[in-house]
Amino acid sequence: MLEELKKEVYEANMLLPKHDLVTFTWGNVSGVDRKEKLFVIKPSGVPYEDLKPEDMVVVDYDGNKVEGKLNPSSDTATHAELYSKFEDIGGVVHTHSPWATSWAQAGRSIPCYGTTHADYFYGSVPCLRVLTQQEMDEGYEKNTGVLITDYFKDKDHNAVQAVLCKNHGPFTWGKDAEDAVHCAVVLEVVAKMACRTEEINPRVEPTPQHLMDKHYYRKHGENAYYGQLPPK
Amino acid sequence: MLEELKKEVYEANMLLPKHDLVTFTWGNVSGVDRKEKLFVIKPSGVPYEDLKPEDMVVVDYDGNKVEGKLNPSSDTATHAELYSKFEDIGGVVHTHSPWATSWAQAGRSIPCYGTTHADYFYGSVPCLRVLTQQEMDEGYEKNTGVLITDYFKDKDHNAVQAVLCKNHGPFTWGKDAEDAVHCAVVLEVVAKMACRTEEINPRVEPTPQHLMDKHYYRKHGENAYYGQLPPK
Amino acid sequence: MLEELKKEVYEANMLLPKHDLVTFTWGNVSGVDRKEKLFVIKPSGVPYEDLKPEDMVVVDYDGNKVEGKLNPSSDTATHAELYSKFEDIGGVVHTHSPWATSWAQAGRSIPCYGTTHADYFYGSVPCLRVLTQQEMDEGYEKNTGVLITDYFKDKDHNAVQAVLCKNHGPFTWGKDAEDAVHCAVVLEVVAKMACRTEEINPRVEPTPQHLMDKHYYRKHGENAYYGQLPPK
Amino acid sequence: MLEELKKEVYEANMLLPKHDLVTFTWGNVSGVDRKEKLFVIKPSGVPYEDLKPEDMVVVDYDGNKVEGKLNPSSDTATHAELYSKFEDIGGVVHTHSPWATSWAQAGRSIPCYGTTHADYFYGSVPCLRVLTQQEMDEGYEKNTGVLITDYFKDKDHNAVQAVLCKNHGPFTWGKDAEDAVHCAVVLEVVAKMACRTEEINPRVEPTPQHLMDKHYYRKHGENAYYGQLPPK
Repeated sequence: MLEELKKEVYEANMLLPKHDLVTFTWGNVSGVDRKEKLFVIKPSGVPYEDLKPEDMVVVDYDGNKVEGKLNPSSDTATHAELYSKFEDIGGVVHTHSPWATSWAQAGRSIPCYGTTHADYFYGSVPCLRVLTQQEMDEGYEKNTGVLITDYFKDKDHNAVQAVLCKNHGPFTWGKDAEDAVHCAVVLEVVAKMACRTEEINPRVEPTPQHLMDKHYYRKHGENAYYGQLPPK
Repeated sequence: MLEELKKEVYEANMLLPKHDLVTFTWGNVSGVDRKEKLFVIKPSGVPYEDLKPEDMVVVDYDGNKVEGKLNPSSDTATHAELYSKFEDIGGVVHTHSPWATSWAQAGRSIPCYGTTHADYFYGSVPCLRVLTQQEMDEGYEKNTGVLITDYFKDKDHNAVQAVLCKNHGPFTWGKDAEDAVHCAVVLEVVAKMACRTEEINPRVEPTPQHLMDKHYYRKHGENAYYGQLPPK
Repeated sequence: MLEELKKEVYEANMLLPKHDLVTFTWGNVSGVDRKEKLFVIKPSGVPYEDLKPEDMVVVDYDGNKVEGKLNPSSDTATHAELYSKFEDIGGVVHTHSPWATSWAQAGRSIPCYGTTHADYFYGSVPCLRVLTQQEMDEGYEKNTGVLITDYFKDKDHNAVQAVLCKNHGPFTWGKDAEDAVHCAVVLEVVAKMACRTEEINPRVEPTPQHLMDKHYYRKHGENAYYGQLPPK
Repeated sequence: MLEELKKEVYEANMLLPKHDLVTFTWGNVSGVDRKEKLFVIKPSGVPYEDLKPEDMVVVDYDGNKVEGKLNPSSDTATHAELYSKFEDIGGVVHTHSPWATSWAQAGRSIPCYGTTHADYFYGSVPCLRVLTQQEMDEGYEKNTGVLITDYFKDKDHNAVQAVLCKNHGPFTWGKDAEDAVHCAVVLEVVAKMACRTEEINPRVEPTPQHLMDKHYYRKHGENAYYGQLPPK
């Protein structure tokens, strides 16, 4: 079932240790099949060195397991909520990558301090609040997803494909599983440089708007000219 | 004698350089055989690249060598004290891992700033005082162990399997040698992120209690649902 | 066309990931043929692991592609401007290397705090302003080059072969592509140590002039005696 | 000539890149033959990947080349001065290792903040002043050595086998070339942790004297009991 997607999601999961984003089992990647309305996700608590494509678990948009021997990631309900509301995304990633997590623990959004950030994220990466006791009792993982999708209700979730959950860590998403990992890697670099930027200049201001626009639209939208774009 | 345990303890020792927790010979892991009331520990001052399973030294709960050609770790008496008082643990680790040691040198307990910490340690990782001259004269290594076990007399040493000794470094323990190493790795990550968290937000507060509870009990105790737990 | 130079430029590009200066495709190296008045540059957005010597693109001093299947780096017009005005340089590098970029984001020039810096750069590495909206509209990449060459109009661009563009990142140059990469590596180390130097001593002053002179002229100019210099 | 010592010194030099203490050619190790009153040192400016045992240069205590095709390290006169005055040492190392160099650039001695430091260095690692213009004119490298040996005139250079030269970097020494490299590695770790210790607790105090004594004398002197010491 969904063998090709399982392989893709497996390979995207294996990019997390490759890019030094995980310690032990602290991360998970999923990818969706929009036709089947099912997604494929890493099993819970399995070390990356032991992971195999066939270990991937198939889940529906309500977070119920449809196929697989193992339990899906404990964060499955968050992924499910993101797939339900962000209807055009194809992949979701959660990690405890150290720099992004440090910003999440500090309870601060990551300001856009330069073109490295603006090349990928249009504006600051938001840090969302901690859920209330009641929201946790109702469903911690699902309501984490609700918090994220509610935040983006009146915003473009493709302009900033990343969020920090306070005292927890980052979630990213993308057009497929690999693209979501790509965003997780960029987020970690951006988080690292933002911390050092403030250390070097405690009174630093965010990137001027026109420079942010220039870089974001150099890579995104109809006037983009970065990379090997096909002729229009 | 205790050949299987020697192999286990050897392998757990070799995880220290693998996880970048040691420079030169600065660390030691032990594992216990509760039936025989003996434990196996790294020999003192032997480089990891030269270490062999048969070099491991067998020691009793008073820290006396029972078998082995080499001298046991100079910290043996601390391990012995932990095995005597923490009757359900199976492994002990001491390192000078840089981030945890920096907190120890700073003389500060590591606050719980997020779920990465709360997934493993229920509350802050305590930093204990320096021994007095008299305590050192009576037996430095043994009294280091006494300081630790005294601190946990009215606390659950399985809820926080780690401690910092002021101006020295961390000790961790676990259900076996590998589990104690696992805690040492987590402690190092948590120590690194806590430092950066305070750098990003000097007025940061610890994780709210209900989030800490949620994450700790998601992984520990009878209602845990993280990983591939057997059905109850 | 220019096959040897393509190989050189390809190899210089591959030094960027080797020295940990790039994430994904965030960097580009070029090298010039002064007789042909053409330079060779990395194609835009191609991952380093997929790069081949024959992918290199040949461009003239106005930044127009002369040969190559792929689009040249989106920063090509900046390189072109540097080759036009700095008539004795042979290579140019742009990266988003994290420490140098953090200084650029902080909007600060890197002071000369020691002999590691003075061995290569005679004085601080300047951080230049953000272009105006009008300058960007006229030609962002070309005017980035103009900003740099204007700054050096009355200065020796061989005494400090590096510059930071505010909220963006570093450019370096050298006698050939490899030498320009060499400067990019040194810049990253110098940027890292300058940040830590200020952390260790927030009131630190730059290196005394006579020590800076000693080290710079030990390696540069007619009285240099570092390395395996041929006898005069 | 001195073939065995050349091999030893070559191998000690190769430990510098292995322990991440050097970028490019920024470091040199020497070892002495006390009977012949000659020492062997790395040639100047040769990359480590190209270095061969036969490239090592033989030099006398006045810093004059006695044998070798290549020029000796530009820091040779500093090494020579250390061998002349520290009559029991067997090896000398100079690097620009980033953390130790950051303390040197900051112009601060490294306080003893813990047992990792006290296991090797008895008290703080001193940061010495910049030479005057006149001292530089008379002989920069030789007078760097004079500054160091003068500082230790009334101190035990075997109790702290390391020094920082302000705005420059560290020198270390030991009973042979490898031991001097060992000190350089420890110094770098100690420098890193001292910086972080102050970051975690800006009001931190040095290690209490009795703990420093305990650890230093656990490893040094006639009552040492660390490692596999021969029975007395």
